[in-house]
Amino acid sequence: MPRPDGRAADQLRTIRFERGFTDVAEGSVLVSFGRTRVLCTASVVEGVPAWMAGKGRGWMTAEYAMLPSSTSPRKERDGTRGKTDGRSVEIQRLIGRALRSAADLRALGERTVAVDCDVLQADGGTRCASITGAWVALADAAARLVAGGRIPATFLTGSVAAVSVGIIDGEPRLDLPYAEDSRAEVDFNVVATGDGRLVEVQGTAERGAFSRAQHDALLELALSGCARLTEMQAAALR
Amino acid sequence: MPRPDGRAADQLRTIRFERGFTDVAEGSVLVSFGRTRVLCTASVVEGVPAWMAGKGRGWMTAEYAMLPSSTSPRKERDGTRGKTDGRSVEIQRLIGRALRSAADLRALGERTVAVDCDVLQADGGTRCASITGAWVALADAAARLVAGGRIPATFLTGSVAAVSVGIIDGEPRLDLPYAEDSRAEVDFNVVATGDGRLVEVQGTAERGAFSRAQHDALLELALSGCARLTEMQAAALR
Amino acid sequence: MPRPDGRAADQLRTIRFERGFTDVAEGSVLVSFGRTRVLCTASVVEGVPAWMAGKGRGWMTAEYAMLPSSTSPRKERDGTRGKTDGRSVEIQRLIGRALRSAADLRALGERTVAVDCDVLQADGGTRCASITGAWVALADAAARLVAGGRIPATFLTGSVAAVSVGIIDGEPRLDLPYAEDSRAEVDFNVVATGDGRLVEVQGTAERGAFSRAQHDALLELALSGCARLTEMQAAALR
Amino acid sequence: MPRPDGRAADQLRTIRFERGFTDVAEGSVLVSFGRTRVLCTASVVEGVPAWMAGKGRGWMTAEYAMLPSSTSPRKERDGTRGKTDGRSVEIQRLIGRALRSAADLRALGERTVAVDCDVLQADGGTRCASITGAWVALADAAARLVAGGRIPATFLTGSVAAVSVGIIDGEPRLDLPYAEDSRAEVDFNVVATGDGRLVEVQGTAERGAFSRAQHDALLELALSGCARLTEMQAAALR
Amino acid sequence: MPRPDGRAADQLRTIRFERGFTDVAEGSVLVSFGRTRVLCTASVVEGVPAWMAGKGRGWMTAEYAMLPSSTSPRKERDGTRGKTDGRSVEIQRLIGRALRSAADLRALGERTVAVDCDVLQADGGTRCASITGAWVALADAAARLVAGGRIPATFLTGSVAAVSVGIIDGEPRLDLPYAEDSRAEVDFNVVATGDGRLVEVQGTAERGAFSRAQHDALLELALSGCARLTEMQAAALR
Amino acid sequence: MPRPDGRAADQLRTIRFERGFTDVAEGSVLVSFGRTRVLCTASVVEGVPAWMAGKGRGWMTAEYAMLPSSTSPRKERDGTRGKTDGRSVEIQRLIGRALRSAADLRALGERTVAVDCDVLQADGGTRCASITGAWVALADAAARLVAGGRIPATFLTGSVAAVSVGIIDGEPRLDLPYAEDSRAEVDFNVVATGDGRLVEVQGTAERGAFSRAQHDALLELALSGCARLTEMQAAALR
Repeated sequence: MPRPDGRAADQLRTIRFERGFTDVAEGSVLVSFGRTRVLCTASVVEGVPAWMAGKGRGWMTAEYAMLPSSTSPRKERDGTRGKTDGRSVEIQRLIGRALRSAADLRALGERTVAVDCDVLQADGGTRCASITGAWVALADAAARLVAGGRIPATFLTGSVAAVSVGIIDGEPRLDLPYAEDSRAEVDFNVVATGDGRLVEVQGTAERGAFSRAQHDALLELALSGCARLTEMQAAALR
Repeated sequence: MPRPDGRAADQLRTIRFERGFTDVAEGSVLVSFGRTRVLCTASVVEGVPAWMAGKGRGWMTAEYAMLPSSTSPRKERDGTRGKTDGRSVEIQRLIGRALRSAADLRALGERTVAVDCDVLQADGGTRCASITGAWVALADAAARLVAGGRIPATFLTGSVAAVSVGIIDGEPRLDLPYAEDSRAEVDFNVVATGDGRLVEVQGTAERGAFSRAQHDALLELALSGCARLTEMQAAALR
Repeated sequence: MPRPDGRAADQLRTIRFERGFTDVAEGSVLVSFGRTRVLCTASVVEGVPAWMAGKGRGWMTAEYAMLPSSTSPRKERDGTRGKTDGRSVEIQRLIGRALRSAADLRALGERTVAVDCDVLQADGGTRCASITGAWVALADAAARLVAGGRIPATFLTGSVAAVSVGIIDGEPRLDLPYAEDSRAEVDFNVVATGDGRLVEVQGTAERGAFSRAQHDALLELALSGCARLTEMQAAALR
Repeated sequence: MPRPDGRAADQLRTIRFERGFTDVAEGSVLVSFGRTRVLCTASVVEGVPAWMAGKGRGWMTAEYAMLPSSTSPRKERDGTRGKTDGRSVEIQRLIGRALRSAADLRALGERTVAVDCDVLQADGGTRCASITGAWVALADAAARLVAGGRIPATFLTGSVAAVSVGIIDGEPRLDLPYAEDSRAEVDFNVVATGDGRLVEVQGTAERGAFSRAQHDALLELALSGCARLTEMQAAALR
Repeated sequence: MPRPDGRAADQLRTIRFERGFTDVAEGSVLVSFGRTRVLCTASVVEGVPAWMAGKGRGWMTAEYAMLPSSTSPRKERDGTRGKTDGRSVEIQRLIGRALRSAADLRALGERTVAVDCDVLQADGGTRCASITGAWVALADAAARLVAGGRIPATFLTGSVAAVSVGIIDGEPRLDLPYAEDSRAEVDFNVVATGDGRLVEVQGTAERGAFSRAQHDALLELALSGCARLTEMQAAALR
Repeated sequence: MPRPDGRAADQLRTIRFERGFTDVAEGSVLVSFGRTRVLCTASVVEGVPAWMAGKGRGWMTAEYAMLPSSTSPRKERDGTRGKTDGRSVEIQRLIGRALRSAADLRALGERTVAVDCDVLQADGGTRCASITGAWVALADAAARLVAGGRIPATFLTGSVAAVSVGIIDGEPRLDLPYAEDSRAEVDFNVVATGDGRLVEVQGTAERGAFSRAQHDALLELALSGCARLTEMQAAALR
């Protein structure tokens, strides 16, 4: 059973990073994982939230939202509903944790990096595209701060990338578009560092349960995908 | 006193329409008025709100929001604040009225067109860019529905475009970027039809008041700008 | 086609200002434009919002709401809906801008004037009645502050009044009650200073569009109406 | 120790009912208890809330709010705060219960009476003034429905009135203005029927506690006050 | 007509206080009035709300909520509804007033006691059980603070207890379970001090009205119930 | 380095299930994992949400909340904050997925099972205790429905249990209390079926990242913990 877009089971979609897509935030990257497109920005603000003021450390937070027109049927706007939906809350907490694992907030001083991931078009894997793209935006913002002598080069301690994997018709597959994601029996999102260690593993049986062997196969596949994304991030930044 | 970007007083910024920027909604246009960039989409949904069901007519509504990273300092997200801010409410009501003036909702049947204008980068004139771009997205959506035999060609009754004008240092100027807008003594947003009639005039003295003569000069300038935008819309659709 | 209440096309409804309608706020005026009745108050509070503290300037803000029983069918209460409706937000922003154009906030010192316009009965033109009545309440509040030696007489720099005009059955008419407003082809709200200059022009085609000539006729009519309202404000304050 | 306004301890403030203060709702009364002024309206709507549809009975509900300018310092608007404050919730539940005790909702048919009590000026006793005035508005609305043949005369089963009493400097006093209310050691709000029975007794020790004898003296005083208010309601309706 | 659970008309349900039910808050009591069970805690926090800082006095506040599963049909969660329901607001204001009447907040210093009453199971009389149980939790918290030398023993000035009474089938009955409460013609909640004085009387005619004689009989019955609850509180604390 | 409570690294805390803790919901279990105590209930309601009506299938949803007094410092109430906090949203989505994996919703018919997990005391591992306890409450509710002939015995398709594991000072440990959880370098929550397969794996590096070998050791430890919890669930239900 071939994949809907003809890819091999262990092949990523076409990945693209458009750096400097907007010019207001210190870093701005339009990342594409196939038809999934996310505008990732990193805005640096002087000062930190009141609850961590005076400790000499910085803070980094992330927000995630889907534009209403990014999906079909159209998604109701958060401002209209009066709150952020539960899924977005969960995703933005994940993005924040992932990025913080690649940074030394003490080197940031009392500054806040606000990362925004706004999904312009959603075709599966938006949280993984967000993390992968946001890290590039963060690297651009960090480079600008380092170049301006505002922070030391030790702020960024490494890189992170993320990818989804899943079991469809019994076969482990890499980087699922929506058509596969919605049929997957098991669904993993894996965040890994550039040197191949794990930052976050989120595996869910969408139906029933999965064995230890299936778990190991999926983790293997995800780590190989993250390794390739790490290379692409580095290439984009050159 | 030359303009910050060297334009003549009656000259528009560089205008661009990127049609089909995303492919989920029936119409999707990334419009640029200089550095101001707005993603305008028109999504067609079967059915109408409950309060107008059974009348055989359609409905068209618009929503407007600025991405948090579109401006500096970064804007708090509506979902976080729990509501749409007053300025956005005012703007989306304006966009909705402008677009409805160019359409025959009876020809739409019991369908809803949801127009979304999401500002990716804000440099003044976002509401005018939104209207001008959204009309192109609407035309694309309408063409698709007409081509599919779902609605008659009479749905779209004309075109609309909008532009801001203002008085800076006593001089009437066309299409203000933020640097001019924030200094303007008087600020007009004008929506006009493709055949040169007026749909909406919103003129505000930011400081003090303005004379009838100043009013007339600004209206003249705005109508000439709308006429040029109308040509550009037509060219983009060819 | 005569008007529903027999007025001439360029005639105002019966206008009344009941000063001192309540005695808590520094200024309190119950204004009537025919059956439209709005309680306008100006309350002076020491201090300014945090974001403008320490600049030695004052601030003036306006809020507008319709009592639930002011209209038929009864309007749901904002506190029940959990937010201010979009139309009210738009109107209160307009009232605030209009009043600020008639005042020198530096002469106010670090004080805030909170203007409240609560519609007791709505029969068209509530925003214009609000502005016209609120200016009288503001004048009363200012006189009290000046008399008490708390602010200089230069605080109030002029007067503002507002009126609606519209085209019904092709005829430009002044000061529309609801029965006309709901049928108008074009609808203008115009705010003018006591010396005949413009502060705000908001013109909307309710159906289709309008010509430059129609625009000019309406503006003329509105300015004549504002001139008469200015006289009535002055008479009320004597 | 005389009362601030020179009244005897068992004397009511000046009570006034201005019937027909607005003309949109079926009943509209501006009631004054001294400087306390409340606009009470009763609006009749066809239909009942979904949860009681199909039972052939009507519903009656009440809402209470203070205008921002009714008190000093100015009260924040509910629509701005995003919700009704706790005290208002408590008061509107009380008003609703009191009025329902004087009506036969089966005689109303499937209609809803929405009572609104909007405080224009607050000087103590606003909940009692609201109940007393709202009953007059309800009687006017009922008379209109009966006259139109829409409901039987049996809808209104009696009258209700309410008054506050309290102990100030050890002395029981009737109908407290704010200056007394804020100093009272004990504070009662009593709702009674026109024939002298009790509908609601709410007695609170503001400081410490009170004896059974004090309780009895206050209840006696309140019942005498309600009897006089009942006469005034009847006189107002003649 | 015997009571559903066979009790005499003037008999309390089985009352239980489980002190130290949880160990995080300074006081924690699971109180049972028959099947009604409420977890009452008193948490002491250094500092007071901003509006009363610097006065050297403490503050005590109470919150009340029913767990969704405490009643049938299941109650929607407040966090889901986005606000506290009106009935809970009313009850928590009552609990706060009752407890403050038994304490000297000046002796507390600038500390806040946050009392939480969370209903695990609701079978009538939850507000009275909350007050009676919360006072025991407050006594435990106070004893701990006194023992630690943080506050003087004069903080607690007395005790409070509360009970519901009502008229069912013409008979005054004490401590109503839900089955009786929902049928009661009149319903009183009475809060009394340990020495037999009144703190709060809330009497409501659920249908029609009630006579002075009925009022007196209910008050008598409630005071006898509170006296017995006072003894049980003291026994529980020994 | 011994554990704070003297346990072996692979030892669970004292686990207790108090079935029938309340009697309103069909299933009600107070589960304890050491000092962590969660009231888990399963309430069965006829009908399903509108979006899945008419499909002949049931629905199961979960909600999770911490009582304000369950933790120190005291947690603000969701009803006061006006929304559910992000962490709770994430946890209740996890609980719902876990329980649905053990049930056949087609066998439920058009009914909804609402699971509530209210944390009375929080000392780490509340989400895992919630899942483990809620499954017992669900089993009780299911048994009652099966006994009443309302659903077939095939509704419950298996059991689920969950446990947290983490690395503290380099050592993998089972079932972390708060004192360990807050120091953990890596933190896993694992949900497993009674027959040893995985339902959900959520692993997070709290600081830095973790190796594949660490990942495998933690997963092993968690699966052994879940196996023991499965036995305890079965014992509790006997």
